[in-house]
Amino acid sequence: MHPLARQLAAITGAGNVLTKTEDLIPYGFDGTAALKGGAGVVVFPQDTEQVAACVKLAAAEGIPIVTRGSGTGLSGGSVPSPDAIVLCTVNMDRILGVDPKNLTLRAQPGAITQKIDEAAAAHGLFYPPDPGSMKISTIGGNVAENSGGLRGLKYGVTRDYVMGLEVVLPSGEIVRLGNACVKDVAGYSLKDLFIGSEGTLGIITEVLLKLLPRPAARRTMLATYGRMEDAAETVSAIIAEKIIPCTLEFLDRMTIRCVEDYAKIGLPLDCEALLLMETDGHPAAVEDEAAQMAAIARSHGAREVVTAKDEAESLKLASARRSAFSALARVRPTTILEDVTVPRSHLAEMVAFISATAAEHQLICGTFGHMGDGNLHPTFLTDERDPDEMHRVHLALDAIVRKTLSLGGTITGEHGVGLAKKPWLRQQVGDNSIDLMRLIKRSLDPGSLLNPGKIFD
Amino acid sequence: MHPLARQLAAITGAGNVLTKTEDLIPYGFDGTAALKGGAGVVVFPQDTEQVAACVKLAAAEGIPIVTRGSGTGLSGGSVPSPDAIVLCTVNMDRILGVDPKNLTLRAQPGAITQKIDEAAAAHGLFYPPDPGSMKISTIGGNVAENSGGLRGLKYGVTRDYVMGLEVVLPSGEIVRLGNACVKDVAGYSLKDLFIGSEGTLGIITEVLLKLLPRPAARRTMLATYGRMEDAAETVSAIIAEKIIPCTLEFLDRMTIRCVEDYAKIGLPLDCEALLLMETDGHPAAVEDEAAQMAAIARSHGAREVVTAKDEAESLKLASARRSAFSALARVRPTTILEDVTVPRSHLAEMVAFISATAAEHQLICGTFGHMGDGNLHPTFLTDERDPDEMHRVHLALDAIVRKTLSLGGTITGEHGVGLAKKPWLRQQVGDNSIDLMRLIKRSLDPGSLLNPGKIFD
Repeated sequence: MHPLARQLAAITGAGNVLTKTEDLIPYGFDGTAALKGGAGVVVFPQDTEQVAACVKLAAAEGIPIVTRGSGTGLSGGSVPSPDAIVLCTVNMDRILGVDPKNLTLRAQPGAITQKIDEAAAAHGLFYPPDPGSMKISTIGGNVAENSGGLRGLKYGVTRDYVMGLEVVLPSGEIVRLGNACVKDVAGYSLKDLFIGSEGTLGIITEVLLKLLPRPAARRTMLATYGRMEDAAETVSAIIAEKIIPCTLEFLDRMTIRCVEDYAKIGLPLDCEALLLMETDGHPAAVEDEAAQMAAIARSHGAREVVTAKDEAESLKLASARRSAFSALARVRPTTILEDVTVPRSHLAEMVAFISATAAEHQLICGTFGHMGDGNLHPTFLTDERDPDEMHRVHLALDAIVRKTLSLGGTITGEHGVGLAKKPWLRQQVGDNSIDLMRLIKRSLDPGSLLNPGKIFD
Repeated sequence: MHPLARQLAAITGAGNVLTKTEDLIPYGFDGTAALKGGAGVVVFPQDTEQVAACVKLAAAEGIPIVTRGSGTGLSGGSVPSPDAIVLCTVNMDRILGVDPKNLTLRAQPGAITQKIDEAAAAHGLFYPPDPGSMKISTIGGNVAENSGGLRGLKYGVTRDYVMGLEVVLPSGEIVRLGNACVKDVAGYSLKDLFIGSEGTLGIITEVLLKLLPRPAARRTMLATYGRMEDAAETVSAIIAEKIIPCTLEFLDRMTIRCVEDYAKIGLPLDCEALLLMETDGHPAAVEDEAAQMAAIARSHGAREVVTAKDEAESLKLASARRSAFSALARVRPTTILEDVTVPRSHLAEMVAFISATAAEHQLICGTFGHMGDGNLHPTFLTDERDPDEMHRVHLALDAIVRKTLSLGGTITGEHGVGLAKKPWLRQQVGDNSIDLMRLIKRSLDPGSLLNPGKIFD
């Protein structure tokens, strides 16, 4: 048994500590393929004070803590270092309140993202960030990773909706950052430092989120293309027309086939690309924009543009896109999902490069992603037991990352660095930025207690 | 002559260094009343390399640098510590490019905010942050202070539009942060640490800004009230109706009179409050929202609601609001401008408290501000040569700050802490946050070279 288990049980109750080997296994990995660690013990605190007590105990014993929500992360951010304490927030899952006058919502870190939007919707309000995993991911994980989603083009990402945080520091001290004011410039924006810091600087124990009025109308359309480039050019043309739709998602041929096989929703199988387009807002604006977008798609080579006739059909189309990762993951034993992002103007070039690179290395790759954001998810369907194929996957990934950086892109648009993207961070941000990040990590967490070895060494 | 002047001149050319006492005077203060410092020397670098060389020189000599743009700051952030080098960015004022495909704009830090929006407008694009001083303020100063403006409710603040920064660190090293990708989670968000850090962590030498499509239509309205509370309740009612206008600005009776006296634009003088309301976007949405807002204003006690009949009249109304500070500043020798912000639901209570507090201390106070943001600018018209009156001003400010904090507000919504708000920062953010800020400052600037003594000690 982990030496700290009894002391952790004294903090949280014995029922909230796992120590048996078979119980620990699921906490040794997250949603990232081919990355596994070994939790020493798992603890489920019930409130902020218990989190603080766990941190103080871990600090005193010099044993690292890796924080985790539902474990849907896609960069290995919550894969534990050997024998670490895994602190799992799923028992702190309450939505603490919605304030319709100030358009805010308070929640514990283990609250499920989709439940947050549902709680907002009950007041006619809207929590826009919608990562693909929103049905099961936790808001604490979303904030720690600064998660994106399908509506990023118009509505931004998780960071844009975090007004306040309660954080337990590596010292075990509790700090409250931000407030319900829509403007606040009192000192350094510490909350922005913790957002996206992947559990390496503090443990988020409460979030205060900004909400928006729920859009009055929306329209979902699906455009079918014979050539991927036409889909990419449609996206550029829509933005050149000064339209910012909430969603511009695409699926390539491989992804379309896997999704259709998985979900049977009647997607066309004889095309090279699908573009899922959604506009929301004032009904008249939605009607105009939808008509313009359909016309632009047609004039840029779309074979067909169909409009969802009602909310149910809209949801069906969106869920087709949401199921892309799961659908691809069924094909072969190992699914290596990339998250490269380029400035939008380089999208067509990047998509073509990915396709050529997969072919060159004789790999099966499905690509989908947030075309409006330049955020692509090339997904290699492979088998980690085949060293030769894994070597070719690595060569392909490396080529894709180098191309991305040469186009002014980023190695990760929304999944985080964690362990999976760590080898490429320095190439992107440069020595001086790495030095600054390390300086901040060492200052805030001198004992390297929280999620050690992630993002950078 | 300042001992470094010759060495600075060797970096920038002699014509870009000021040393004569009479030349230094204007660089001893910014837009904040009753705060004066004394520059030792002023240097005007022409490019990033010159900034870096100046910083290295200052670091070697142990002489602090205070960075400054146009000097429109309202919290004393650019008031120099005695004998500091004032590094003025106004010669680095180029707009380096607009990229309509990626909706971005690159500029040097001395570029004027309004020119940035004009450069965007030439492509049908829009840079929304519009601080009151935008005709003369620099973008570098806006980023350093995370400036707000009149459109914050719908469009957010400067931080929301900064995609990338080039920064000279206290070591003289140059670091480039961020990129043109709309999503990027590669490591800690260092740019967010520099935004709003008021020149204490680095010197901004280039900015990459996000642009939006320019709204196709807008409508500006002016509502007149006999009671201030009715104006505040109109704001709450508009938001309860799920409308997020771009502007909800108010002026109280004192401000209205001063503005009218200054600008002669025919404002009604027999009312207690004016609410300037503006909605923008799709023409049909604008028409609907404007009609709803006018109806809500009337049903909440507005005596009259007038709609600007054209763009010229819109601009006239907006400029009435923009001239509020200048108009008030003419009345008495010293103008003490506050920047307290409360969660929107406490607005009416806060406005009433300010008014009662001014009366209690027998002070003249005009209040205006961004009602939609809960961001108030109570402005005390006083005389710094009168110690008794200044003492009463201080008592009133202290009471206003305490009330603000008791309502969950912030001591500064958009002006920054600088020197003016420093006495109250700890009360707002608490000891742990101050400790974290100090830790970051000491880590990044161990020699306390950049803007020492600002924000916190």
